[in-house]
Amino acid sequence: MTLGDTEQALLGRIGARLGPRGLVLAAQDKQAYERSARHGGGRARAVVRPADEEELAWVVRALAEANMPMVVQGAATGLVGAGTPTSTGLQWVVSTQRLRDVLQIDPVNRSATVAAGYRLSDLNKAAQGHGLTFPIDLGSDPTLGGMVATNTGGARLIRYGGVRENLLDVQAVQVHPAGQRVGFSHGLRKNNTGLAWSQLLCGTFGAFGIVSRATVKLHPVQRQSATALIAVDAVETAISLVTDFEQAMGEFVSAFEGMSRGALEAVARHGPGGTMPFASAPEYAVLLEVSSAIPVGQGLDLEALLMAWLERCLEGGGIVDAVVDKPDQLWRLRHAVSESVQSLGRMVAFDLAVSRSRFAAFRAHALTLIEALIPHAQVCDFGHLGDGGIHLNLVVPAETSQEQIGALRTAVYRSVVEEFGGSFSAEHGVGPYNAEYFERFTEVPLRELAGALQRHCNPDRLLGNVRLD
Amino acid sequence: MTLGDTEQALLGRIGARLGPRGLVLAAQDKQAYERSARHGGGRARAVVRPADEEELAWVVRALAEANMPMVVQGAATGLVGAGTPTSTGLQWVVSTQRLRDVLQIDPVNRSATVAAGYRLSDLNKAAQGHGLTFPIDLGSDPTLGGMVATNTGGARLIRYGGVRENLLDVQAVQVHPAGQRVGFSHGLRKNNTGLAWSQLLCGTFGAFGIVSRATVKLHPVQRQSATALIAVDAVETAISLVTDFEQAMGEFVSAFEGMSRGALEAVARHGPGGTMPFASAPEYAVLLEVSSAIPVGQGLDLEALLMAWLERCLEGGGIVDAVVDKPDQLWRLRHAVSESVQSLGRMVAFDLAVSRSRFAAFRAHALTLIEALIPHAQVCDFGHLGDGGIHLNLVVPAETSQEQIGALRTAVYRSVVEEFGGSFSAEHGVGPYNAEYFERFTEVPLRELAGALQRHCNPDRLLGNVRLD
Repeated sequence: MTLGDTEQALLGRIGARLGPRGLVLAAQDKQAYERSARHGGGRARAVVRPADEEELAWVVRALAEANMPMVVQGAATGLVGAGTPTSTGLQWVVSTQRLRDVLQIDPVNRSATVAAGYRLSDLNKAAQGHGLTFPIDLGSDPTLGGMVATNTGGARLIRYGGVRENLLDVQAVQVHPAGQRVGFSHGLRKNNTGLAWSQLLCGTFGAFGIVSRATVKLHPVQRQSATALIAVDAVETAISLVTDFEQAMGEFVSAFEGMSRGALEAVARHGPGGTMPFASAPEYAVLLEVSSAIPVGQGLDLEALLMAWLERCLEGGGIVDAVVDKPDQLWRLRHAVSESVQSLGRMVAFDLAVSRSRFAAFRAHALTLIEALIPHAQVCDFGHLGDGGIHLNLVVPAETSQEQIGALRTAVYRSVVEEFGGSFSAEHGVGPYNAEYFERFTEVPLRELAGALQRHCNPDRLLGNVRLD
Repeated sequence: MTLGDTEQALLGRIGARLGPRGLVLAAQDKQAYERSARHGGGRARAVVRPADEEELAWVVRALAEANMPMVVQGAATGLVGAGTPTSTGLQWVVSTQRLRDVLQIDPVNRSATVAAGYRLSDLNKAAQGHGLTFPIDLGSDPTLGGMVATNTGGARLIRYGGVRENLLDVQAVQVHPAGQRVGFSHGLRKNNTGLAWSQLLCGTFGAFGIVSRATVKLHPVQRQSATALIAVDAVETAISLVTDFEQAMGEFVSAFEGMSRGALEAVARHGPGGTMPFASAPEYAVLLEVSSAIPVGQGLDLEALLMAWLERCLEGGGIVDAVVDKPDQLWRLRHAVSESVQSLGRMVAFDLAVSRSRFAAFRAHALTLIEALIPHAQVCDFGHLGDGGIHLNLVVPAETSQEQIGALRTAVYRSVVEEFGGSFSAEHGVGPYNAEYFERFTEVPLRELAGALQRHCNPDRLLGNVRLD
């Protein structure tokens, strides 16, 4: 790939402005920005790494004025390719990795203003000293900009909501007018003065603007918790326990995570040693957690509360077994599921959600679709059951064709959206790897609306790699 | 006002379709739909009252095809005139009062799907039987459609968030294409498949579509609570207590409401008897509440927890007095503030919010503006201090001119937005009564974006009475 004169001149200007750390051109150095976390990757024309919001705005203006297509990338932990360049080799990667010009904890407002390039772990390290936390609990460690663009959820959504519910403000750089900054970070908990810019940017994978900084709510850290892993005879039992658990544990509920027999067996085979507490994997298991900001010794004893509930449930039947100690081990088990399933062989992953009241029926129906279309697939589903989330991951025989996988994907997505009123992308968002399903399973008026917005914000199609109309 | 032939024919069609209860034409019957809750009102061409979503879609299509301007009205409890016809007499009122075709509680999903015309109290009555509640706590009893369009907040926002944080889905009828229905109610807790239609409609006062039904999260009802009213020496003290209160009470915090000396004196004079617990009104007071879904007798004693915290605070100084019993009386006091202030004389109301860390500085600055521009005004501010909210309500001398009030309004709004990064409409939204400030204090790119969306959704300007560009 060679660069034309315009691009050479542009590179010269960018290099002069951002310095050597701001521009990545060598093929071997670019590679780190070309890999997607799950689906291969593409090729970047060049990688630019602005170090503050001023530089970001300047870079976006320079690229847009030269008509260069660009894709914005944080920590490259996304699972749908929205932050990875396509294989055309034409897209410039705007990396936010060096965009770390602000990380302010405001303990009085219980909020933090964070540049897009900081990682979740950076924010939590800074917040901890104030007894605060940003409670989005994820398996990966994405940047804050990526979290906003994806509206990440995670294992404690049932307690705290996702990014959307914890987002106070977003400042962003627009591609059109090129380099314009929009949104001031106020840290307001309420502001009903029309269109919520921050909400519009949340979960729209950077289609309407480039997140440069965000202000998020923080929460008091949890100072006690109690955890249990319960084995149940059927997923229906697990669902029937959600309501009861929430009524009995109220505001303490902080996780209700489901794991199928297949998922548990994968961990037993490929996970870290000593995490599987059951002699043999039950039909389904749920990891429960309750937690509180009130430390032990002030009258509140969550362990006792959880035990009392469990004893009552054990009398009621349906619970086959329960483990109530070693919370670290139980969470390690839960966090080992995804990789353990991947170790079993060729994985096909789904990121779905349905209403909790339809969860069991949907799962049963999906199993029949899998059985019919890829007969010897191993189903290893798991997910945030308390939110109706299901990562319906399968390990398929090596000889399974792309056509078979495509047919299953379409059938499952059609079923979840059209028959069960669910989502074909509950957490991971929309990117090139599932954009065709966005087109297929999004209501026409909503696609038109998103398209109108994209045309307004990005009329020359320079930003991102998903078309919304 | 006479009706032309086109309108007569249209009325005939609407009457035939909706029946006599669906159409209000007599001047005295229309009056109830022409009054705004705070600011006078206007005149309706006619009032149509569809009884289900089908009828709503049909009516909207009929009106839009005949090029009739319309304004949507719920319970008419809004405070900015967004649901009231203007004085031109040209607007048709589409009332959602009869739109009560669905009220489904889904206890397993912990959600409710509610037609736009149901009131908050209707929903809570239905949810209560399942041990659930929709915890948006307001002084008025609006319809669910109005709550979505306004993104109402209220006194428990600090615990539960506002409508936005509790909104799962919205179904709406579009004006363009006329009568098209968009958004299916799924009750999904996560769905990252692009533009969040429900979030776009939330807080945008019906500018982009007519809410026909919404699915909202419900929460377990609170089974114990503890309340205190503390008198403090200064608003700075109150602010310094927020952080400490949240750290000590964690997930139990459910209210932190501020009341100034002026507000308390107004209640002492005009409020219900026996609500004022202090011999003389202190400089500032805070109503604190902690609550839990866990009933008394299971080890959790919120009263003891709150008392222990209060005792510690009393040692620290700054708290002048405290009342810890009779929660009903304390809340009656709080709820009596708004009307009591109004009873004092000619009221000028503000609905502002700032970051909590700027609250005291903003309030001090606002007081100097008031002193300079309307010297003898009585300041009776109160509000949701824990959210940075301040209803900076004043009682001004009878002879105060409209120019003086306008000058103060502009000065306060400019200060809150431009100097303190706050909001000029924290809770009440945007309508004809504050639209000029939307134009003045909204960033240009955001106005352009809102305008582009409005042109897409409402190209003929038939819907609503606020122009967004």
